[in-house]
Amino acid sequence: MKIIALDSSGLVASAAIVQDGELVGEYTINHKKTHSQTLLPMLEELKDMTELELDTVDAIAVAGGPGSFTGLRIGSATAKGLAWTMDVPVISVPTTDAMAYHFYGSDKLICPIMDARRSQVYCGIYTFERAQDGQMAPWQGGRVAYRLKVIQDACAVAVEDLIQRLNEMQKEVIFLGDGVPVYQDAIIERTTIPFSFAPPHCNRQRAANVAVLGAVYFAEGKIQRAAEHAPEYLRLSQAERERMEAEQGAMKSC
Amino acid sequence: MKIIALDSSGLVASAAIVQDGELVGEYTINHKKTHSQTLLPMLEELKDMTELELDTVDAIAVAGGPGSFTGLRIGSATAKGLAWTMDVPVISVPTTDAMAYHFYGSDKLICPIMDARRSQVYCGIYTFERAQDGQMAPWQGGRVAYRLKVIQDACAVAVEDLIQRLNEMQKEVIFLGDGVPVYQDAIIERTTIPFSFAPPHCNRQRAANVAVLGAVYFAEGKIQRAAEHAPEYLRLSQAERERMEAEQGAMKSC
Repeated sequence: MKIIALDSSGLVASAAIVQDGELVGEYTINHKKTHSQTLLPMLEELKDMTELELDTVDAIAVAGGPGSFTGLRIGSATAKGLAWTMDVPVISVPTTDAMAYHFYGSDKLICPIMDARRSQVYCGIYTFERAQDGQMAPWQGGRVAYRLKVIQDACAVAVEDLIQRLNEMQKEVIFLGDGVPVYQDAIIERTTIPFSFAPPHCNRQRAANVAVLGAVYFAEGKIQRAAEHAPEYLRLSQAERERMEAEQGAMKSC
Repeated sequence: MKIIALDSSGLVASAAIVQDGELVGEYTINHKKTHSQTLLPMLEELKDMTELELDTVDAIAVAGGPGSFTGLRIGSATAKGLAWTMDVPVISVPTTDAMAYHFYGSDKLICPIMDARRSQVYCGIYTFERAQDGQMAPWQGGRVAYRLKVIQDACAVAVEDLIQRLNEMQKEVIFLGDGVPVYQDAIIERTTIPFSFAPPHCNRQRAANVAVLGAVYFAEGKIQRAAEHAPEYLRLSQAERERMEAEQGAMKSC
């Protein structure tokens, strides 16, 4: 099975190709250039370097939110365009699921946080549990394999509420994501459980994670047609919020 | 601190740029093309995409072996050339150290294995331990941080001997590396402790791991001048072996 994966949910733009048990190629840029300029050229580079035949691709996996609204739109629009043209399904992998998946097999809580502005973070809480027979992906041929366990689905909350929830869980946690430098002081001040910050090789989005977890979700039937896929923003965009507030203001003044 | 990292120790060619707490860019190809054709163009791509100024780079980290002799020579020669020209040190990161570093914070044994032919594997045995005060890297600002603990330095051994050693350690292990598909049957047959195989996003070389662990080793003073760096092959090359055997044969027939 061959999957192309994209993640442009944050400041990082990342593309990857995974075939069965191997990462064939991955290209990740965390720089100021806009994703609309970088994402497709990066995928084209990967395609050329790995001599990828597009008609051998089985699915397009994409970080389907939460994240930057513009970034998610670019990622999902690209994924939809590729999947529609190739006539393959889209696998929408929640951004925070894919970020947590880096820590495959960890015994700790994994908490990806992304800055959602307005004193909120997009986040999720995860850990790993042993997979049962019949739940293993094809590359999980060991005596033990791990499944990502979602304790808190991706959501938008105040960082204080997130930390309170984690403190109540009384288990060591690894924080990662672009929300860490933004909320580092609050985390250090308020977190009462042992915690660490993920190092740079595993503290941001990676399309390889999206691809590999996407393959697991594909096997579980979690796929969409290109036409029906849309990212999960979790919140209204600033434009929509301002329009609603304006409409409510107009109604009140009636 | 800014580090360029290269890993061409196996079938994978990978280049990365890490600055302080962030992965600026990473490019990884696991395809049949030879590294001599791919490694430097990949780094050039990364440099252009991230607008890297070469005179801002502080060190060149390289997967310094074990691994493919030709791959190691290409990686080390490239690293030496870059470091000498830029007048910065080389950080030689053992290949298996960098591969294990993916599993930052894991409570399990991590065992990277690379096919060394002649019924042997290049391997190491690792786990993570909590860092003490003063041992933390700058990005490790949490209440807890982890250090890679080397239980068995990179070595070349028969896979049976490796498995026996692991079985005696009585602790769960994660296997990764290109040796896994080659020796999967022997591992399944002989390993008596719980074990898993790492999934595709974390089962091969990544230059980001080399860069981040390289930054840790840099802080510990483990650096070399460009002129003195050489990869650690751990074994004689086939050509050297054949010459020695021929010489011994010639001596015996005297």
